[in-house]
Amino acid sequence: MADNKTYTAALLIIGNEILSGRTTDANVPYIAGRLNALGIRLSEVRVVPDVEAEIVDALNALRARYTYVFTTGGIGPTHDDITADCVAKAFGVALVEDAEARRRLEERYAETGIELNEARLRMARAPVGAVLIDNPVSAAPGFQIENVFVMAGVPKIMQAMFESLRERLVGGDPLISRSIASRLPEGMIAQGLGEIQARHQGVDIGSYPSYSSAGFGVAVVLRHTDRAVLNAAARDVIALIRDMGGEPAEQEM
Amino acid sequence: MADNKTYTAALLIIGNEILSGRTTDANVPYIAGRLNALGIRLSEVRVVPDVEAEIVDALNALRARYTYVFTTGGIGPTHDDITADCVAKAFGVALVEDAEARRRLEERYAETGIELNEARLRMARAPVGAVLIDNPVSAAPGFQIENVFVMAGVPKIMQAMFESLRERLVGGDPLISRSIASRLPEGMIAQGLGEIQARHQGVDIGSYPSYSSAGFGVAVVLRHTDRAVLNAAARDVIALIRDMGGEPAEQEM
Repeated sequence: MADNKTYTAALLIIGNEILSGRTTDANVPYIAGRLNALGIRLSEVRVVPDVEAEIVDALNALRARYTYVFTTGGIGPTHDDITADCVAKAFGVALVEDAEARRRLEERYAETGIELNEARLRMARAPVGAVLIDNPVSAAPGFQIENVFVMAGVPKIMQAMFESLRERLVGGDPLISRSIASRLPEGMIAQGLGEIQARHQGVDIGSYPSYSSAGFGVAVVLRHTDRAVLNAAARDVIALIRDMGGEPAEQEM
Repeated sequence: MADNKTYTAALLIIGNEILSGRTTDANVPYIAGRLNALGIRLSEVRVVPDVEAEIVDALNALRARYTYVFTTGGIGPTHDDITADCVAKAFGVALVEDAEARRRLEERYAETGIELNEARLRMARAPVGAVLIDNPVSAAPGFQIENVFVMAGVPKIMQAMFESLRERLVGGDPLISRSIASRLPEGMIAQGLGEIQARHQGVDIGSYPSYSSAGFGVAVVLRHTDRAVLNAAARDVIALIRDMGGEPAEQEM
């Protein structure tokens, strides 16, 4: 897939618990990393509350703009799990009980002796036209409709769902990254780094300072799809750090 | 400030490093918690890349919609630090060297023997009409323009900046929270919880399942500004858990 198209994605996190500060999101790094490997760039993340109008508006804005949209959260059995309703509304289709989803819940609950009550049956609903996403952890499936993939928020379940849907994703050339660290203060390499960026315009060059008891530090991260192009820019960064009296150290990405 | 106005906030995270998965955001829980205490609700978070048009568009959307907007990231000395430029552009004003910001950098760098080069002087720029935000950690200030507060992304510096700006924020009654956990599966309390939500419509009731080696668990989090109203709903949740054979346990928030 060596075309020049850029494949993009957005993540919509449906989560009062993130906005209240109760829970720290753990899904962004996982999804970002997996998408990178597939040649898809995570281009935006939004966190919205469990409010229908907010979810519908954000979903419609994001799905029009990016190749793929992933959502996390709000697909459980309780009254505050309204993601499926909102996705159906955003697409203007009905939300119905999916026979296969119901079969999976019945099977799992029969095995474990849990009652398939009315609340749990909410997890068998999907918008008309959706395709299920397997959930090997707790059975209740996610679903895909057009370019939108609806997943659970619990990281272990989200990860299992992502692995079961990833073959549906088409991406481009993966971005390759190098990270070159030194113990120089960021302001010392800033001018030279700007000149390197100007000479290597296609390379995404980021500069990330750190402060610790060991003193100043800065990591320069370079990203490009072509290793030769990436390495040419990285050589310049290494030379700059040496010129400024620093010791360049390649970091694991 | 016992008015009925709702004070809201959005956080705009400017960060390729978050979208690439390299760095996990650590600022949302801090900002959410501090805003809660001030009676301001964090209502949306967006993460956008270091791209001018994306930052300007997101900033203009958010500042029109929420009482306050906070930004983190992109205010250092390197070529990829473009937040100040974008904020000036969003407000349609010039970005200029701020004399007081320059004085603070000169003073700090004179103390530490660091050269105030051209790249570092970028950190003295602010939009016309902005008010500085103190940075007791590394001197280079943030700034406020109208309802937008521009802060560093490094958590230690962001936190120091937030503490120095918080007296400028006006909020309402803080939300009070209670969290009641049990080892019941979420699907067992889901129906009863929906009925409790229907009876206590003003209370924000969230249900957060967990799965661990200890088995199922669910935390029910209730939030309201009035303790008596909150406690009435919490009593119903505790009774529900007991009715279902569970042991309700109050969690620290």
